[in-house]
Amino acid sequence: MSVSKRAVILLSGGLDSATCLAIARSQGFEAHTLAFRYGQRHQYELDRAQLISEKFAAASHRIVEIDLAQFGGSALTDAAIEVPKSDTVEAIGDSIPVTYVPARNTVFLSLALAFAETVEARDIFIGVNSLDYSGYPDCRPEFIKAYENMANLATKAGVEETRSLRIHTPLIDLTKAEIIARGMELGVDYGMTLSCYDPADGGVPCLHCDACLLRARGFATNGINDPALSNH
Amino acid sequence: MSVSKRAVILLSGGLDSATCLAIARSQGFEAHTLAFRYGQRHQYELDRAQLISEKFAAASHRIVEIDLAQFGGSALTDAAIEVPKSDTVEAIGDSIPVTYVPARNTVFLSLALAFAETVEARDIFIGVNSLDYSGYPDCRPEFIKAYENMANLATKAGVEETRSLRIHTPLIDLTKAEIIARGMELGVDYGMTLSCYDPADGGVPCLHCDACLLRARGFATNGINDPALSNH
Repeated sequence: MSVSKRAVILLSGGLDSATCLAIARSQGFEAHTLAFRYGQRHQYELDRAQLISEKFAAASHRIVEIDLAQFGGSALTDAAIEVPKSDTVEAIGDSIPVTYVPARNTVFLSLALAFAETVEARDIFIGVNSLDYSGYPDCRPEFIKAYENMANLATKAGVEETRSLRIHTPLIDLTKAEIIARGMELGVDYGMTLSCYDPADGGVPCLHCDACLLRARGFATNGINDPALSNH
Repeated sequence: MSVSKRAVILLSGGLDSATCLAIARSQGFEAHTLAFRYGQRHQYELDRAQLISEKFAAASHRIVEIDLAQFGGSALTDAAIEVPKSDTVEAIGDSIPVTYVPARNTVFLSLALAFAETVEARDIFIGVNSLDYSGYPDCRPEFIKAYENMANLATKAGVEETRSLRIHTPLIDLTKAEIIARGMELGVDYGMTLSCYDPADGGVPCLHCDACLLRARGFATNGINDPALSNH
């Protein structure tokens, strides 16, 4: 397979990044997946990322260790900060929630960039979404565009004027329901994915955090049951 | 001290970043220094970073662990790739050398950004230099400008329209000789600093890598002896 079809894909173990991997594979990319042990509240998502990576025959899968918890400031990395819970998706506010991890996507994309440069990949996929999301600044299209511009100046590729580096965000304009519909077409087994910010032992979703509420609405809109729930 | 005068400063233990810290302190910033254990060939520079940080009364000093060696691709993180050595500074070429670590400054700045966001600092200092340097793409002014633009979209600061985040590069237009002259005025003890890419046991500089050659020329131009050499 030619170098130009090699891509680095950020994988969290959640619904969005699994769909993103499926899309990259459907476009003929050789997939090199990266997951992060960054000090998140639970490690279940890392097991899911591994399974999803195998399911889509990724050429390689790595877990990168980077302790963002040492900086603090987020409910996702600090057990002392509670993950907000609600009964309805409408309760999700417009402001940046406490589950925001400072500069997380910037850090993850930077490590993906370092990895991409060493494997000579010019394509990075990230499953960010600017519609049904939690209001994080680093999921917005203008952030991704600015990141791509910076990345092309940061690396050898930019200096040597080879084909420029591209950050692919195939989900950015899709609703959660549309993401799920697209993934179903591509054979994603959503039973493997875990979206919950605060699962119980064994990775059982709480059903009340923002991520669970958005996911539930996405499946409901498609008129199908979430296969991850029938597992429990 | 007000939040607005708090800065995150990247510190490598080398000459440039020590000068950068001295400049930040001279401008009245409360200094929070970050060094990285990233899989570099030697750890001496981390000891130096700690000493320099104490000398300039940094408010905090952290060493962040991030294994860039796992990605490979650089003489600075792979013992199997030799650091180029020469007798004259003129031998430093125009192309990107094997000591380039893929996306290193992007990764370091991203972690600085995460840290800055949690301590509510809006200022990040990095000692990059676009004149007497080794030809790394991520030391160029256009890279820094693009990074700053991205950083302002990546974080809460960008969304909440508080004062924007600034990447300070006080050395970017200075020759190595000018950097040294500025540092001497500000009381930098260059005997504490280590620039060498490939020091012998105990942190003794090799005197023949690009970093040693550029440093030697900087001291020679100022007509002074390098205090780091009289230590050995």
